[in-house]
Amino acid sequence: MSTLGQSIRRALLGERLPTSRAAQERLPKLLALPVFASDAISSSAYATEEILLALMVAGSGALGYSVGVGAAICLLFAIVAVSYRQTIMAYPSGGGAYAVAREHLGLLPGTLAASSLLTDYVLTVAVSIAAGVAAVISAMPLLAGYRVPLCLLFIALITLANLRGVRESGKLFAGPTYLFVFSGGLLLIVGAVRLATAAGPAVIIQEPPVAALQPFAWFLLLRAFASGCAALTGIEAVSNSVPAFRPPESRNAALTLLWMAGICIGLFFGITLLAQFFHIVPGGEQTVLSKLGRTVLGDGLPYYVLQAATAMVLVLAANTSFTGFPRLASILAQDGLAPRQLANLGDRLVFNNGIVLLGVFASALIVLFGGMTHALIPLYAVGVFISFTLSQAGMVKRWRTLRTPGWRLSAVVNALGAIATCVVLVVVAAVKFVHGAWIVFLVIPLLILGFRKIAEHYRTLAQALSPEEYDVPRALRHSVMVLVPGLHRGVIDALIYAKSIDPECEAVFVEVDPAETAKLQQMWVRYRPGVPLTVLKSPWRSLAAPIIQYIRTVRAEKGVGLVTVVVPEFATTQWWHRLLHNQSGLIVKLALMAEPGVVVTNVRYHVGE
Amino acid sequence: MSTLGQSIRRALLGERLPTSRAAQERLPKLLALPVFASDAISSSAYATEEILLALMVAGSGALGYSVGVGAAICLLFAIVAVSYRQTIMAYPSGGGAYAVAREHLGLLPGTLAASSLLTDYVLTVAVSIAAGVAAVISAMPLLAGYRVPLCLLFIALITLANLRGVRESGKLFAGPTYLFVFSGGLLLIVGAVRLATAAGPAVIIQEPPVAALQPFAWFLLLRAFASGCAALTGIEAVSNSVPAFRPPESRNAALTLLWMAGICIGLFFGITLLAQFFHIVPGGEQTVLSKLGRTVLGDGLPYYVLQAATAMVLVLAANTSFTGFPRLASILAQDGLAPRQLANLGDRLVFNNGIVLLGVFASALIVLFGGMTHALIPLYAVGVFISFTLSQAGMVKRWRTLRTPGWRLSAVVNALGAIATCVVLVVVAAVKFVHGAWIVFLVIPLLILGFRKIAEHYRTLAQALSPEEYDVPRALRHSVMVLVPGLHRGVIDALIYAKSIDPECEAVFVEVDPAETAKLQQMWVRYRPGVPLTVLKSPWRSLAAPIIQYIRTVRAEKGVGLVTVVVPEFATTQWWHRLLHNQSGLIVKLALMAEPGVVVTNVRYHVGE
Repeated sequence: MSTLGQSIRRALLGERLPTSRAAQERLPKLLALPVFASDAISSSAYATEEILLALMVAGSGALGYSVGVGAAICLLFAIVAVSYRQTIMAYPSGGGAYAVAREHLGLLPGTLAASSLLTDYVLTVAVSIAAGVAAVISAMPLLAGYRVPLCLLFIALITLANLRGVRESGKLFAGPTYLFVFSGGLLLIVGAVRLATAAGPAVIIQEPPVAALQPFAWFLLLRAFASGCAALTGIEAVSNSVPAFRPPESRNAALTLLWMAGICIGLFFGITLLAQFFHIVPGGEQTVLSKLGRTVLGDGLPYYVLQAATAMVLVLAANTSFTGFPRLASILAQDGLAPRQLANLGDRLVFNNGIVLLGVFASALIVLFGGMTHALIPLYAVGVFISFTLSQAGMVKRWRTLRTPGWRLSAVVNALGAIATCVVLVVVAAVKFVHGAWIVFLVIPLLILGFRKIAEHYRTLAQALSPEEYDVPRALRHSVMVLVPGLHRGVIDALIYAKSIDPECEAVFVEVDPAETAKLQQMWVRYRPGVPLTVLKSPWRSLAAPIIQYIRTVRAEKGVGLVTVVVPEFATTQWWHRLLHNQSGLIVKLALMAEPGVVVTNVRYHVGE
Repeated sequence: MSTLGQSIRRALLGERLPTSRAAQERLPKLLALPVFASDAISSSAYATEEILLALMVAGSGALGYSVGVGAAICLLFAIVAVSYRQTIMAYPSGGGAYAVAREHLGLLPGTLAASSLLTDYVLTVAVSIAAGVAAVISAMPLLAGYRVPLCLLFIALITLANLRGVRESGKLFAGPTYLFVFSGGLLLIVGAVRLATAAGPAVIIQEPPVAALQPFAWFLLLRAFASGCAALTGIEAVSNSVPAFRPPESRNAALTLLWMAGICIGLFFGITLLAQFFHIVPGGEQTVLSKLGRTVLGDGLPYYVLQAATAMVLVLAANTSFTGFPRLASILAQDGLAPRQLANLGDRLVFNNGIVLLGVFASALIVLFGGMTHALIPLYAVGVFISFTLSQAGMVKRWRTLRTPGWRLSAVVNALGAIATCVVLVVVAAVKFVHGAWIVFLVIPLLILGFRKIAEHYRTLAQALSPEEYDVPRALRHSVMVLVPGLHRGVIDALIYAKSIDPECEAVFVEVDPAETAKLQQMWVRYRPGVPLTVLKSPWRSLAAPIIQYIRTVRAEKGVGLVTVVVPEFATTQWWHRLLHNQSGLIVKLALMAEPGVVVTNVRYHVGE
């Protein structure tokens, strides 16, 4: 049974790895870029669409605002990237929002950052997979009926791959990410050329109707902006992973960050511009990027390459969360804020429990929201901007504390980043609250409360268990009793064992049927095991209750601190044999677990050995 | 947690009962009749319909044969009843088919009878509930879409009622059974009067077309006969339960059997006749009995009383299986042929495991066959006739062995019964084989094989565990080690306990992270627990493997027979706390279970006590 389970486990997860293999792979910039930027870059695949969908509420005439909204988002992106560049320089060991916020701002901001990050990791998986499946369905409309099953299948595959220990293998990431960047670039170039040579549709800059800029319109623009902010997710990945770069780590990481920012801004703004010029209208079974691709590239191979690259880079983006979530969860577990199991390294040197948890949560979101990217977006970004704000506010605090040369300018840069992201956070929260952001505002406080409760439990338990000032019990007096279900070889072994630790021990039998007692007493006379037999009556046929009652009596009468209860068991060779035996020993043991002053000892007789 | 579970259990099942309450209720004939006859009587509700459905294959002209087929079934009923009357006289302690066959024919016929009976108990529940729900749907066609859920609901309620210990409470059964008999009787009388006064339709005895009596027609008649034989199910219930009658038990039981036979034959034949005279055609959402009821009694109160009584008596018929199945299963368990858990008396003095098992199997049948009585009928009756035949053949054998005065006549009566039921068995099996009876012919041998395997296991295990000629191990040498996950109060308690049983004991720590080892060693120096500490390296991060390896080394080097492994644990007060701790102790204990020569001792520290 156990061997079969092991074999299945090995087949699915691969051979186990020794701890010594844990050293991290060092990446050159050319591989580091796709590994850490795939999340941020992949958002270009859906950010423009979210802006257009938000504007569509006011009719297709409002779509013209998308360029302005996109430009604002690009400005924000640049500010945040510059700000994070400073984090990279300051934290060569990798400065996640949780670490920075906890160190410089305190426990509550730290746990706030942690819970925001955890919810956002889950959302990243759900959104990226939903968007990836949307790209697949755009190219193959036949699959439209299988949206949710496809999403769940992808999540299951990524979970399994991560349990095997895929991690950020540079080679795995490089292909799809560069393919997406290049095919996206091709789209922009071909689109620009077609516009310039007027082979495309006549270029009409739609002047937005002036009357629309009323209060409601402003709100609409803010919503479009908030939705488009999904483009910023993943920007912090580089700063979390500085130690994975080749030396000089900080410089290489900072350069990679700038490259990433350039690519993201270029792709996102380019797509937004082209969508405007080619009058792409969002909605239906096709994504905006797919419509744009078909319009610009035609329905040939280049279009299908673009769609395939989009789907792959989105799946890879989900995959980065499978590194981030378990790592953050394990740090929280080590800090005593999360269940300790989350810090266990599995056979393949990955945090199995965190990986499975992330897969389960993301799958639940997919099912709840029907696998629709657009339905998930309102929940997204809130957590991202909370952690951005905290991380950069922490940096400001850090500069004020350290006062290294030039700290004032650095503090101003981070402060600018913190203020910008904080303002965006308020905007995002306000305009998306009723559309689903409220769920995040419910979950984050619950998580913080959970962290607090867990920390409290571990702390009080550590105190209660501390060997400091422990009144070591007086010389231990204990009494031994053997629970006998009958008299067989296993029982005889148990009796001999019990005699060896307490020559005064006794055998205890619970009488449910008096006929059984008579039989047992005859056997006792015949085989003389040399231990007195006590029979406890059980009018209610319970095994545990009379035993516990008797233990209490013995402890009181003999004045012993402990009673050792010896439970004879026998082990059979085939698993189905276990179904054929009353699990009464197990039931009694469970009942004894709650009784203080009881030591339970299992003596197993191995049949046929 | 456990207390909550207990409260729910008590609320659902009622207060537990002491063993002394197990004495059986004695029933006067007027209450015994409804209790033991409800199964047999209730079959009149669907037996006629099954005959008509079988004949309908040849068109409605063939329905005229139903009277002849019905008459043949009534004759068979009379023969079997007379034969069973002799079983009652011979077995005042209750002679089930399993007991009789096993005593007089041997183990294989005994297990054949037992497996036939078990399958038929399951089928009785499925068929009766399906027919009961059909009666409800006939009266309330709105419910037609909920056939399967309604069936499952009824089964769940009966299961629960039986877990509470309803059993054959005479008062519960009397009402519905007599109501069914009386409303059925009313139907017959009103129908007869209406026919006699020609208020009903003109009486036309449909002469069956002579040409139809070709080979195929004979086969059809046999199928109609086989389907109608469902009327005989339940006939053996009285003979199984002779001790439940008031003295003189055998005479009262025999009289009750005759009454039952009279009522069954009267109702069944009367309904068959009336259905013929009133040209009732089977099919659609309404049962034949319901159509007959509406035709004869009109759509008023008497009709609804008939339908309600039908539904109730069918549910009660299912209920009798909930007594028979668990009782037979417990007898098989006591005989070592079935898993022993089936012989456990629950809190309410009923065989919980058997009751739940029956409910699960019957529900599975309902789901598989869509809750349709007609789909289930081909599986039915095969088991019944196997057990009839074996039971009566066993009686013949008995007469030949005992040779009591007048044994020849008695043997002839039983032989007639055995031959008749055996012939019917062959007919039933042949004509219903392809329609589902093959399932029963697959299940019964599998059950017999299962009984055999189980008996073999219990027998070899009993031999392997027999204290007879057991080479009692030489003076026991054992060595004690304490698994320490760290050093806290629970560990200190465990170390003190270990020292008390072996002053030479040692503490063992599995090193996954060297930093932890250093911390532990410092604590060891500081608190000096007085036990040497051994550190085992675990490059693969497994806890169990290094421990097992070390145990084997110790056993080999020290030459000790046993190693006692002390596992310190701590018990917390709230259930959710358990989720916050690595269940590593549990995992190690599971791994140690398979290792010979290991005694596992749990020392629990109760936090906060």
